[in-house]
Amino acid sequence: VTDDADTASAIAALPAPPRALIEIDCGQNRCGLAPDDPALPVVAQNLGPAFAGIMTHAGHSYGGRTPQEMRGYAEAECRAAVQAAERLAAAGLQARIVSIGSTPTALHAGPLNGVTELRAGVYMFGDLFQAEIGTHGLDDIAVTVLTSVIGRRPGRLLVDAGGLALSKDRSTEAAPRDYGYGRVLDLAGQPFGDAVVRRAYQEHGVIERDADAPIELHIGDKLRIAPNHTCMTAAAHDRYHVIDGDDVVVAVWPRVNGW
Amino acid sequence: VTDDADTASAIAALPAPPRALIEIDCGQNRCGLAPDDPALPVVAQNLGPAFAGIMTHAGHSYGGRTPQEMRGYAEAECRAAVQAAERLAAAGLQARIVSIGSTPTALHAGPLNGVTELRAGVYMFGDLFQAEIGTHGLDDIAVTVLTSVIGRRPGRLLVDAGGLALSKDRSTEAAPRDYGYGRVLDLAGQPFGDAVVRRAYQEHGVIERDADAPIELHIGDKLRIAPNHTCMTAAAHDRYHVIDGDDVVVAVWPRVNGW
Repeated sequence: VTDDADTASAIAALPAPPRALIEIDCGQNRCGLAPDDPALPVVAQNLGPAFAGIMTHAGHSYGGRTPQEMRGYAEAECRAAVQAAERLAAAGLQARIVSIGSTPTALHAGPLNGVTELRAGVYMFGDLFQAEIGTHGLDDIAVTVLTSVIGRRPGRLLVDAGGLALSKDRSTEAAPRDYGYGRVLDLAGQPFGDAVVRRAYQEHGVIERDADAPIELHIGDKLRIAPNHTCMTAAAHDRYHVIDGDDVVVAVWPRVNGW
Repeated sequence: VTDDADTASAIAALPAPPRALIEIDCGQNRCGLAPDDPALPVVAQNLGPAFAGIMTHAGHSYGGRTPQEMRGYAEAECRAAVQAAERLAAAGLQARIVSIGSTPTALHAGPLNGVTELRAGVYMFGDLFQAEIGTHGLDDIAVTVLTSVIGRRPGRLLVDAGGLALSKDRSTEAAPRDYGYGRVLDLAGQPFGDAVVRRAYQEHGVIERDADAPIELHIGDKLRIAPNHTCMTAAAHDRYHVIDGDDVVVAVWPRVNGW
């Protein structure tokens, strides 16, 4: 659009809000209608012109641990969405949006015939939990929290990233490997052995120093912490400082937080 | 200040930054110098004109469970701060600021001779953890998260407040009573029996419905969730909506978040 008149006509061409997607339960049993629920066409009919389509989210794919399991969740997610859309179509109700997605299923999806949208949340950044369940490698995690060493005690270091900077997310507690409140990396992204942030106070994080592999760091030294769950950690910050292979900030990306 | 010249002279009258407080360890063993550490006057001397005083924080008071224990922590906090300030004074170094404080010790403090500042964090709002350790009553919690019922399943309700709205703080896990991710209240602040947010997904919370005391709520009904740790929960929001005995918002208080 190039001027106000164009803007107005572009807005006028948009479908009138609100538009509603009906949530389909593809197996997580958290929310939504089953794809074969008799109420499905009734709900769509009752939405009238607001009915825009269906969406589902295989959140239970986070319980998967192998590519085979992930493919199974991905197929079930796609199948549930398409089945729901087909039932609606048979009732004369066109789902213009058929939306699926979770990060594990996005990465293990097969053909997506009948799907119009794949929503993938942490997909673009990755995190320790996703690495633990095999959706990507540990080296693929693209978000870290920069922190400084602010204290030393026998056997441990104190850093200025605590729960407010890292979040209190403990999702890797149930993963094959428990990373505490995050994995400790140097500025180049290389790990310090098995070091993790073991405790997170509100403003302080505690890194335990393994006696067999002491971390020789001093007050003022900088570290990166790879997060358990990037969505929760990133929500604690109002922007990303983007770097590309070194420590030069090449862009600052604002975030949309809140509701 | 009324104009630029006044502003400039007001700024000129401020103490020159940076001003530094030396942290004193009053027993938590997290950070800071012991009050009798030989390095204390050396550090203050080295700070030169930046030296403004000392501060301590009895974070280990969160481990207390009785008024007697809390008073003990409060006395130790005050004693450590005053002892450090007196040692510095004896070396000719005047601590203009002698700062103590944690919420439990603020509430159980005795005479504060020699102290110039008491920092109390969650003191003004309270939370479930503070109620569990006896610093105030459950009815004194002044911050809740307003949420809506968005789903029903046998034995549980789904609400639109998950980890992003409540935080993933689980501090009451170690308290006498575990409130999950928060205690469920009605709009008037009255509890629904023992109901808590048992699971917190990113955007969804799950309230388990006790078979003996079913919660008769419907989709769209509103609830309040009292937080485990108000500091962490409030940090997820950019403002407070202030009410005073009913549901009329009488003020909106912005928050300072981030670093």
